[in-house]
Amino acid sequence: MTIDAALTELSTVLGNRLSRSKSDLALHGRSETYFPPTPPDAVAYPETTAEVSAVVQACARHGCPVVPWGVGTSLEGHALAVQGGVTVDFSRMDKVLQVNAEDMDVVVQPGVTREALNIELRATGLFFPVDPGANATLGGMAMTRASGTTAVRYGTMRDNVMGLEVVLADGRAIRTGTRARKSSSGYDLTGLMVGSEGTLGLVTELTLKLHGQPEAISAAVCAFPSMAAAVDAVIATIQLGVPMARIEFVDPATAAAVNAYAGSDLPELPHLMLEFHGSDASVAEDAARFREIADDYGGSGFDWATQVEDRTALWTMRHNAHYACLASRPGARTLVTDICVPISKLAEAVEETRTDIAAATIPGPILGHVGDGNFHAELLFYEDRPKERDEALRLSERMVDRALRLGGTSTGEHGIGVGKLGYMAAEHGDAWGVMGDIKRALDPKNILNPGKVVRLN
Amino acid sequence: MTIDAALTELSTVLGNRLSRSKSDLALHGRSETYFPPTPPDAVAYPETTAEVSAVVQACARHGCPVVPWGVGTSLEGHALAVQGGVTVDFSRMDKVLQVNAEDMDVVVQPGVTREALNIELRATGLFFPVDPGANATLGGMAMTRASGTTAVRYGTMRDNVMGLEVVLADGRAIRTGTRARKSSSGYDLTGLMVGSEGTLGLVTELTLKLHGQPEAISAAVCAFPSMAAAVDAVIATIQLGVPMARIEFVDPATAAAVNAYAGSDLPELPHLMLEFHGSDASVAEDAARFREIADDYGGSGFDWATQVEDRTALWTMRHNAHYACLASRPGARTLVTDICVPISKLAEAVEETRTDIAAATIPGPILGHVGDGNFHAELLFYEDRPKERDEALRLSERMVDRALRLGGTSTGEHGIGVGKLGYMAAEHGDAWGVMGDIKRALDPKNILNPGKVVRLN
Repeated sequence: MTIDAALTELSTVLGNRLSRSKSDLALHGRSETYFPPTPPDAVAYPETTAEVSAVVQACARHGCPVVPWGVGTSLEGHALAVQGGVTVDFSRMDKVLQVNAEDMDVVVQPGVTREALNIELRATGLFFPVDPGANATLGGMAMTRASGTTAVRYGTMRDNVMGLEVVLADGRAIRTGTRARKSSSGYDLTGLMVGSEGTLGLVTELTLKLHGQPEAISAAVCAFPSMAAAVDAVIATIQLGVPMARIEFVDPATAAAVNAYAGSDLPELPHLMLEFHGSDASVAEDAARFREIADDYGGSGFDWATQVEDRTALWTMRHNAHYACLASRPGARTLVTDICVPISKLAEAVEETRTDIAAATIPGPILGHVGDGNFHAELLFYEDRPKERDEALRLSERMVDRALRLGGTSTGEHGIGVGKLGYMAAEHGDAWGVMGDIKRALDPKNILNPGKVVRLN
Repeated sequence: MTIDAALTELSTVLGNRLSRSKSDLALHGRSETYFPPTPPDAVAYPETTAEVSAVVQACARHGCPVVPWGVGTSLEGHALAVQGGVTVDFSRMDKVLQVNAEDMDVVVQPGVTREALNIELRATGLFFPVDPGANATLGGMAMTRASGTTAVRYGTMRDNVMGLEVVLADGRAIRTGTRARKSSSGYDLTGLMVGSEGTLGLVTELTLKLHGQPEAISAAVCAFPSMAAAVDAVIATIQLGVPMARIEFVDPATAAAVNAYAGSDLPELPHLMLEFHGSDASVAEDAARFREIADDYGGSGFDWATQVEDRTALWTMRHNAHYACLASRPGARTLVTDICVPISKLAEAVEETRTDIAAATIPGPILGHVGDGNFHAELLFYEDRPKERDEALRLSERMVDRALRLGGTSTGEHGIGVGKLGYMAAEHGDAWGVMGDIKRALDPKNILNPGKVVRLN
């Protein structure tokens, strides 16, 4: 069998760093959300780019699928070996290779997590801002084009990856981008690779932009009488140029779940949670300006925090909202939706979604990154109730239809994986076919994470 | 002949909007810099996407090259029909289609110039910030991944194009991106098209990010004893997080040229010119903080301007520096170099370049976008002196070698066109071949702006 032949060859390359143990296969066959376990045939633990090249070359010779794995926090089954083959676990490629403080960039291996990087950077006055909540690897974040709470200020992985080393489907390693801040030198291969979910190449090195740690940070939380009022306050804040580092939304159901989980006492209303980065004077001014705007839109219970503990408590609450939602229905699985719309359509999109979920038989608290127009419903269902699963999928599909009708996208930051493949044709039309053309040109044997992003005939 | 057959067919589609007049061909065969005139066989003036599709379909049937044209301000011969064929002039597709003020985006046709767009936006409180100096079309700016003086704050075209409508090599029109602020939905085709110089498709519509017009603007100019001192001041300013909207460098030769051209009295020293955007209080604070930093690095003659007239005078001087350099050697042509390096290497790159030019027989004033590490030498030579032309090309090649050695790129913002094709292999290695693979997949007959960006065998 072709996969067996590949594995025999890989054993000689990697020795005991090619694992076929049951526990390893099971660990790499799991998903964070609702996808059934899908173990690979083997797990490879390369330590160098040359070893990644050797793995891909062997797999290419035998037509064996190659699936990259960071820490498995993806929400759409990106790292599942749906056609079997070898999962490449990057946990042994976890070095920070260069910190270029003057240039505010860093060169890392793909297995470095964002928290590990920020610990390493602590003394430099710099930090890496992209924060999807989970302590994902930077390789994984690049491959899903991740973002999170800070994108409104610092951008997504698209904006913060300057260059890559990538092992192609034939095993050659190429470099994309440079350490220069900008370039007009040919096609943007870095941008093409970011978000390609391992289907065009395996990333073995990343050059990332860093940002200065803000001199001062303040955070604020405020309740609003309606989602529309909260969104209007956000639009006014953005248009007045008040620079927000984070601006997050939670709906009444999420506020209730958070209260139950964390013992907080948020009123069961729509809330905004904000953070400002700058100087002592500017963050105070920003918070004051936001407060005035919030007052205009019926905001209440405005509270702001400049102390580290208070801020940490606020953002821990926000980051734990995912677990709070899960805990609100013990034992349930979650289908996490991820639509993103133009901000002028956000209130409409959230309200329609809430109405839809209210009429359904399963709960679905809503929270999101309101500054980007991106929000998630956590659709909670019991796996042993097929009707609930169908209902979650139906609600999710209706959310995507809504996003596309309103000029948005099926996924703001979670990616396609296997979970959203069914929406690609509707979202992209003939452009999806162009993605397929590119995939065929770069991976003619379809060995790189097959079954994700594109469909090939 | 294949081109003739295509032209016959195009005449029936476009009528008298297919021009073969000598003056039209000559106008579309010229370049802003040192490339010899290269007229196309015909110029098409489409008015709709459907007409662009029809043009491309006819050209595809007959293997006739198709070359897009904005207003011809490119510096590397991008829009020259080096293999003949049809130049598609987008001047009749110059409508602003939608201004979405709440979402801070705009949908435009490719022939809209950046100044025309900003005039249209004046009453909205919004503006489009990318400013390459020339009043280029937005389609052309997207295709060369242009940037300019404001990139340090607002980014390049890569950062400000949200979506495109593109006519592919087979005539189909696709849409890339959405009006959502971010997306993880498949390969970033928008990013792939931006900077592709018309070799992968013709852009027929652009969705662009807008930004709030700043409440207050201040500008400053300051002389430094050396390039190294000026760059160190810039690095300190960036690391302290002082938000600059522009930070430009001119060398002593450029200061002299500007003095002669504009009657100013800049000391013949390295200068920085800066602009700050924000509130009245913040721009005053930013300028004061910069002044302190400049003092630390030996800055002198610090002058700052909050009045519109004074600012306009400063930036007119900067924008006219290109013409001032040309006027400093009457009748000369210019080869404008465009390397970009990590900022920690900028002083070294500029100093080595100055030494190199000082030892040469032609002048080459230096100016640039110091916040991005991007600078230009204007290598001035007489066309009837082949040795001078060779010297300009040799200096340019040495600059590129230097940029690559220092971790940078051959072109920060001008693009490849025909002028920098010879540096692609050195800059990209095997990644250049990947660009060729993508080109072949999307334009198998090589009809879209052939001879640019990639080399196909």
